[in-house]
Amino acid sequence: MPETSLRSDGRAPDQLRDVKITPGFMPNAEGSALIETGQTHVICTASVETSVPRWLKGQGKGWVTAEYSMLPRATDERVRRDRGGRLGGRTQEIQRLIGRSLRAAVNLEALGENSILIDCDVLRADGGTRTASITGAYVALSGAIHWLKQQGRVEGNPIAHNIAAVSVGIVDGTEMLDLAYDEDFKADVDMNVVMTGEGDFVEVQGTAEGEPYSAAQMDTLLKLAAVGIDELAREQNRAIELAYSAD
Amino acid sequence: MPETSLRSDGRAPDQLRDVKITPGFMPNAEGSALIETGQTHVICTASVETSVPRWLKGQGKGWVTAEYSMLPRATDERVRRDRGGRLGGRTQEIQRLIGRSLRAAVNLEALGENSILIDCDVLRADGGTRTASITGAYVALSGAIHWLKQQGRVEGNPIAHNIAAVSVGIVDGTEMLDLAYDEDFKADVDMNVVMTGEGDFVEVQGTAEGEPYSAAQMDTLLKLAAVGIDELAREQNRAIELAYSAD
Amino acid sequence: MPETSLRSDGRAPDQLRDVKITPGFMPNAEGSALIETGQTHVICTASVETSVPRWLKGQGKGWVTAEYSMLPRATDERVRRDRGGRLGGRTQEIQRLIGRSLRAAVNLEALGENSILIDCDVLRADGGTRTASITGAYVALSGAIHWLKQQGRVEGNPIAHNIAAVSVGIVDGTEMLDLAYDEDFKADVDMNVVMTGEGDFVEVQGTAEGEPYSAAQMDTLLKLAAVGIDELAREQNRAIELAYSAD
Amino acid sequence: MPETSLRSDGRAPDQLRDVKITPGFMPNAEGSALIETGQTHVICTASVETSVPRWLKGQGKGWVTAEYSMLPRATDERVRRDRGGRLGGRTQEIQRLIGRSLRAAVNLEALGENSILIDCDVLRADGGTRTASITGAYVALSGAIHWLKQQGRVEGNPIAHNIAAVSVGIVDGTEMLDLAYDEDFKADVDMNVVMTGEGDFVEVQGTAEGEPYSAAQMDTLLKLAAVGIDELAREQNRAIELAYSAD
Amino acid sequence: MPETSLRSDGRAPDQLRDVKITPGFMPNAEGSALIETGQTHVICTASVETSVPRWLKGQGKGWVTAEYSMLPRATDERVRRDRGGRLGGRTQEIQRLIGRSLRAAVNLEALGENSILIDCDVLRADGGTRTASITGAYVALSGAIHWLKQQGRVEGNPIAHNIAAVSVGIVDGTEMLDLAYDEDFKADVDMNVVMTGEGDFVEVQGTAEGEPYSAAQMDTLLKLAAVGIDELAREQNRAIELAYSAD
Amino acid sequence: MPETSLRSDGRAPDQLRDVKITPGFMPNAEGSALIETGQTHVICTASVETSVPRWLKGQGKGWVTAEYSMLPRATDERVRRDRGGRLGGRTQEIQRLIGRSLRAAVNLEALGENSILIDCDVLRADGGTRTASITGAYVALSGAIHWLKQQGRVEGNPIAHNIAAVSVGIVDGTEMLDLAYDEDFKADVDMNVVMTGEGDFVEVQGTAEGEPYSAAQMDTLLKLAAVGIDELAREQNRAIELAYSAD
Repeated sequence: MPETSLRSDGRAPDQLRDVKITPGFMPNAEGSALIETGQTHVICTASVETSVPRWLKGQGKGWVTAEYSMLPRATDERVRRDRGGRLGGRTQEIQRLIGRSLRAAVNLEALGENSILIDCDVLRADGGTRTASITGAYVALSGAIHWLKQQGRVEGNPIAHNIAAVSVGIVDGTEMLDLAYDEDFKADVDMNVVMTGEGDFVEVQGTAEGEPYSAAQMDTLLKLAAVGIDELAREQNRAIELAYSAD
Repeated sequence: MPETSLRSDGRAPDQLRDVKITPGFMPNAEGSALIETGQTHVICTASVETSVPRWLKGQGKGWVTAEYSMLPRATDERVRRDRGGRLGGRTQEIQRLIGRSLRAAVNLEALGENSILIDCDVLRADGGTRTASITGAYVALSGAIHWLKQQGRVEGNPIAHNIAAVSVGIVDGTEMLDLAYDEDFKADVDMNVVMTGEGDFVEVQGTAEGEPYSAAQMDTLLKLAAVGIDELAREQNRAIELAYSAD
Repeated sequence: MPETSLRSDGRAPDQLRDVKITPGFMPNAEGSALIETGQTHVICTASVETSVPRWLKGQGKGWVTAEYSMLPRATDERVRRDRGGRLGGRTQEIQRLIGRSLRAAVNLEALGENSILIDCDVLRADGGTRTASITGAYVALSGAIHWLKQQGRVEGNPIAHNIAAVSVGIVDGTEMLDLAYDEDFKADVDMNVVMTGEGDFVEVQGTAEGEPYSAAQMDTLLKLAAVGIDELAREQNRAIELAYSAD
Repeated sequence: MPETSLRSDGRAPDQLRDVKITPGFMPNAEGSALIETGQTHVICTASVETSVPRWLKGQGKGWVTAEYSMLPRATDERVRRDRGGRLGGRTQEIQRLIGRSLRAAVNLEALGENSILIDCDVLRADGGTRTASITGAYVALSGAIHWLKQQGRVEGNPIAHNIAAVSVGIVDGTEMLDLAYDEDFKADVDMNVVMTGEGDFVEVQGTAEGEPYSAAQMDTLLKLAAVGIDELAREQNRAIELAYSAD
Repeated sequence: MPETSLRSDGRAPDQLRDVKITPGFMPNAEGSALIETGQTHVICTASVETSVPRWLKGQGKGWVTAEYSMLPRATDERVRRDRGGRLGGRTQEIQRLIGRSLRAAVNLEALGENSILIDCDVLRADGGTRTASITGAYVALSGAIHWLKQQGRVEGNPIAHNIAAVSVGIVDGTEMLDLAYDEDFKADVDMNVVMTGEGDFVEVQGTAEGEPYSAAQMDTLLKLAAVGIDELAREQNRAIELAYSAD
Repeated sequence: MPETSLRSDGRAPDQLRDVKITPGFMPNAEGSALIETGQTHVICTASVETSVPRWLKGQGKGWVTAEYSMLPRATDERVRRDRGGRLGGRTQEIQRLIGRSLRAAVNLEALGENSILIDCDVLRADGGTRTASITGAYVALSGAIHWLKQQGRVEGNPIAHNIAAVSVGIVDGTEMLDLAYDEDFKADVDMNVVMTGEGDFVEVQGTAEGEPYSAAQMDTLLKLAAVGIDELAREQNRAIELAYSAD
């Protein structure tokens, strides 16, 4: 009962928002998914390119990279487009995180000299857009790899790990899972965690926006994240099986 | 019967693709609509800003402007984002056309010192994205003006004309309405027409991609456009009434 | 007689300004012309390049493209140069129009793998700079093609159509030919028309700056344009014969 | 003995490189320090500005922000300067980290409407330049605040926490403190940790470059970081006392 | 006779090319001139602006600045426009030289809070475009100051010095005045000299492109420059009197 | 005695500031030096690259180019970094001067197809940073050429001339050598002179910031410069012998 009062949408501290992943949302792309976690909605696509960056040529390895963008009215106040030559620091940081995380999901040698370019376009933003992007992008990436195998351009299975991401944080002294925007806004600590389905860490980025946090708090946050990742991985697998197991 | 063979989707030369307009698609925006015409889907939002451009200040008049963008995989081949400082010529041309057309729909004096910024984001592109943007943007604009009136920031009716837009062209010697991408690609003449619901012209842009066209062909094209605009205006009004007449 | 009062320079509604084309104005260029229409003066040059854009390579076809610029004091108020990284939307739109129009004048297969880059630099601007640019550029282009033939790099005649351009518009309710700046400024409708010497359309761009215009007005405007194009084509041919028929 | 073989410079896994901080290295700046940790040398300056960013005006609070740059030959291969309009993603990420970390060190209300701009310029880079920048910047920041107090522009003590930063990682299966470049290059996990002198976390950024890491490994890494921070904080305090206690 | 063989156009080493200055060439500008020195032709305009740069406000002083540009086919090979965001180093250097030189011609206090912006646009380039720009710009500047006095916005005479500029150089071991492009191209020393009509130096920029030059050669070059400046100043004064003495 | 009053640091008009050159200051670079002239300190590095610019390929010649930058707090007031896409005119001018001057020191044919990229980074600025950069860069360049010879990539001696640079100027009517910032700030004439150790000129750039200067003053300034260059060349040679003669 006391938890009800803690969160504006009535969730328990260790409860994810409702999550729904729709694979194949963008029919022109080799892989795609729409991910909806509460009021955060992101379109993720995976585009296969037949070449790799110049510095990687001739090594028989593939590459995965990402771009992230928000529609101007994904938010309550209109946000200007990233058009003025200088890509904002926040955007670049998110793109780099998404790309790095998804490369950890893939065995680049097994991918061969193919590149996969992930696009994450946020339709609605209510906190957690970067973690939703990663979770959705994993499904889009799986679709693109499925396509590469169907085309005979890849053999074996380049997927090394099932990965997903979630935010955790400390709000009003309480550790919480999957912060919505109003929670994120007043959080003392904001942490994004990318993990494998097996429970290992791919990336941890935790920032004290207000007071520094103790080792004990860190421990609680990481355990909350593991709870969320477990549920997200199940939803990812449900979507992937639905879309690709039949053929 | 012979017409069936002319168009890949079996339409008659003077037949629009199925069109569907969903008002209120972006709940954060003051006005919005998703327009689907065949496989061309565009999200249009209208954002109200409480100021006008500097050169217009103090004149008691409002302003309407537009931005246009495509998701990278709206098309079959991934298209690079407009990020490198230099906005592509095609994008700028389309933005200017959308803004100019919607200003023709509005009595800027009646709008008062409010600006409305239109965003057209293409989810899927199968020809006619600029005309679909204008047709959908009119519905989003109507929503934003409805909101301004509800807020008491505008009195009277700043809508001067109901406007809509459609493409026409000459393909394999035949004049056709509402070209899909495969038709546009091989068209000898490609024309975008913006009209009022009363049948007057706001903007005509007709280009001979192949052979120049005669005055007689011009005449046929303009008449085809009027047929299409009439149907689009009905769908616009249906959507607007659905969304805004109740309150 | 009543027409005299309509136009500030005393022209009849269907009367062009005095036009004069001086071929070979820029002796370093393969083709060039100075075009003077009233107080609008534009230097047009055509530069031959021995390669084509990458996407056209190996197809045996040529290319024509254009750049447009104004000297800062071509106008009454100094206009800033297009230097700040972002090329203005108006400039890009005009460049694209000039390039597209001149490609319609040329049989690109017959041109072989040669590119012609048109530069239009406005010395003085008094309305109609884009149409004067097209009309003058056609003479410069003819000069460059003459040079290519003299060099033996092109055989046959790559000129497919003689093209010229003129503006028409509706000012104070009257349809007029070849608007000067003070007329253009207050026009309700502003239309640029590119036509062949045979009277067919290459490009029509008509915008209602004020009230939308009817089909009947459209018809009158297109007929006025044809009158102007006919006279411009005669002046183009006079200049071309003067410069290139002797050798 | 076995440790000797693990690290190229003979350090034990839990051993920092020699660290030396020279306060006042840039005499024109309000605060400055040269920090040398092994072969990584960074010049940190703190510049006081008498205004705050526009969005913060009138709130009685200060601001701290940072810029980071490397001299082109700080590294073995020359690295291009960040000049081409687009600031590299890595540079932006580091700048944002430094600024965020140093804001956590400061009570922005107590700073009043003063801004402090931190510049970190890397003279030599041998791994850990971002953590050395933060550790050195804390000393420069302390100098600038000392100057503000001497000037009577700040009263009380705006320093909320002593902060320092260090890297930890997993190399060849062993958790290690303070990675040099050759270690960082082959690390499976690379983690940057910003902590207070009291042992609480300000920022944790841990990335699995190779295999994901377990919760137990995470725990070991965070404990190693605490060991390093403790020693760095002592060297910071030594430098600050040396420079500022006398007056 | 030996001199004839030295210079391609038959000039003596101490002989200027024919020079002609046409004042008022750009009728929209407050001051303007076309300067032709041999095959180098430059349009110079002077635009009066009613404000000064921000850093100069409230000091009762004026400012003079310059922009320089070449038409793409001013040269034998087409030169790309300065549009890509980054203004070329050569262009910036020339602009700074022109602006600095013309400020030396003016008593900025006597100019009051008026700015004069000089535009130098090269129609044809055959060596010496920057010196021709300065020489012609002085006439345009005189026109603008004449206009300011007529408008009653300036009293007294803000012209402090009559200035002109010329190039000198060492070609094949011989010191020469006013190098044409083919001479400049092979010169060992290239020097631009800006002087007052009274024979004092405003700016000297001498570069050894090949072998360094001795003090004696320096002396000869400076004397040659003085000869040229004397003749240029006479042509400037002739043009100014022609244009402005009557009223 | 009268001289004491003339210069703030008590130097005689023909006296250099103390100069000290430390070769090998940047151990990662093929050649480097720290030059200190009074309170102006510049780090110069020379980086060898195994290719030449495209336009020079296949000619068997090398190239030397330069970049110049200041640390933001090299000066009393923080100066913004050259990051915003557009490199400042002053920076470009200095870079071009340094590159041109050092190319005059080198026999580019003897250098073979190697490029040397000079970086001059100003740690502290108290006037004369561009001339100190050139003087220090010559030592760095000598180091890089020494390295190329050791590597067997260059035979013979590509050094054609020992070059150094110094500023001279007229302050309060007196000609002076090596202006510090406070002198430069109020100088009527500011001249930078690049000379060979043998006393010939490589580059002279003299600007009248205030009143134009006479031929006699020019003569005095050039002689003062020769005095300074002589001393600087001795210090360069001392540094070079110290660093490179032993091996």
